[in-house]
Amino acid sequence: MLDDNNQQCPVARALEVLGDRWALMILRDAFDGLRRFSELQKNLGLAKNILASRLKLLVEAGLLEQQPASDGSAYKEYVLTEQGRAVFPIVIGLRQWGERYLFAAGESRSQLVDDREQPLQTLAVRARDGRALGPDDCHRRVIRHT
Amino acid sequence: MLDDNNQQCPVARALEVLGDRWALMILRDAFDGLRRFSELQKNLGLAKNILASRLKLLVEAGLLEQQPASDGSAYKEYVLTEQGRAVFPIVIGLRQWGERYLFAAGESRSQLVDDREQPLQTLAVRARDGRALGPDDCHRRVIRHT
Repeated sequence: MLDDNNQQCPVARALEVLGDRWALMILRDAFDGLRRFSELQKNLGLAKNILASRLKLLVEAGLLEQQPASDGSAYKEYVLTEQGRAVFPIVIGLRQWGERYLFAAGESRSQLVDDREQPLQTLAVRARDGRALGPDDCHRRVIRHT
Repeated sequence: MLDDNNQQCPVARALEVLGDRWALMILRDAFDGLRRFSELQKNLGLAKNILASRLKLLVEAGLLEQQPASDGSAYKEYVLTEQGRAVFPIVIGLRQWGERYLFAAGESRSQLVDDREQPLQTLAVRARDGRALGPDDCHRRVIRHT
C-alpha cells in the first residue's frame, strides 16, 4: 500500500503495475507481436505459473485483454489495450538506456527500427515549447481538487 | 541470468537494473533532489535494510555515487551519475502514464512542471524525421558484429 505522500504520485502508482521486471518483459514481447501464452513462455523462458500470474495482473490492470485466437483455433490470445499500448514510450526509454550504457562496443544487440529501416529518435523530455529539460529544470507541485 | 535471446536485448538488460519498483522509486526521489539515506527512508517509507540493498545495487550498477555531504557534516550523500540522470525520460514516461490512466477526475496528484511552471510535453516515440511512431510502425533487427 502506498502512503499518503506516494498515493498522489503518478510514478508510484505506475510502479504498482509496472515496477516488475516480468510485466515489462511481457509488454516488450506484446509490442513485438507475441500474443499466445506458449509464444511468451518460450521467448521469456519463464515458469508457466509465474507467466500466468503476471498475465493475470496485466489483464486485471487493463493493459492486456484476452481474445479468441485470430486463426480460429481454440487458443486465447493476449492483446494490448490502448492503456497497454501507451506503455510503448517507457519500453523505448528502457531500450535506449540499455543500448547506451549496458553494451560494450562490438557486442551483438537487437535494435528497433521504423518502417523505413531507420533507428528511432532518442526520447527526450521537453517543455511544451520544445526546450530539452533535465531533472534540474523541473520541480513537483501538487494539484489539489477540493 | 538472461538466455541468449534476451542477452542481446537492451530492454532485458535494462530491466536487470531497473526492473524493480524500489530502484525506480529511489531514482524518482533522486530526481527530486533527495540525497541522504534518512531523507530517502522517510519519503519512501521503506525498511532500512531494503533501502540499503537497493542503494548498493544502484551504486554498483553505476547510477548513483556516494559523496561526502554538501554541508560538511559526516553524512554521505547519494548523487546521480550521468548514467543515472539518463533514466529521467523513463521516470517521466511512468509519471505521464500514471497521470493518464491511474487517477480519477478530481483526485489530488503531484505534477511535474518546468522552470516556467508549465507542464511538460508528453513523451512520444518518433522517427528521426519527426513522425510519431507506434509499436506497429517498428520492428526489431539484430546488429551483429563479427
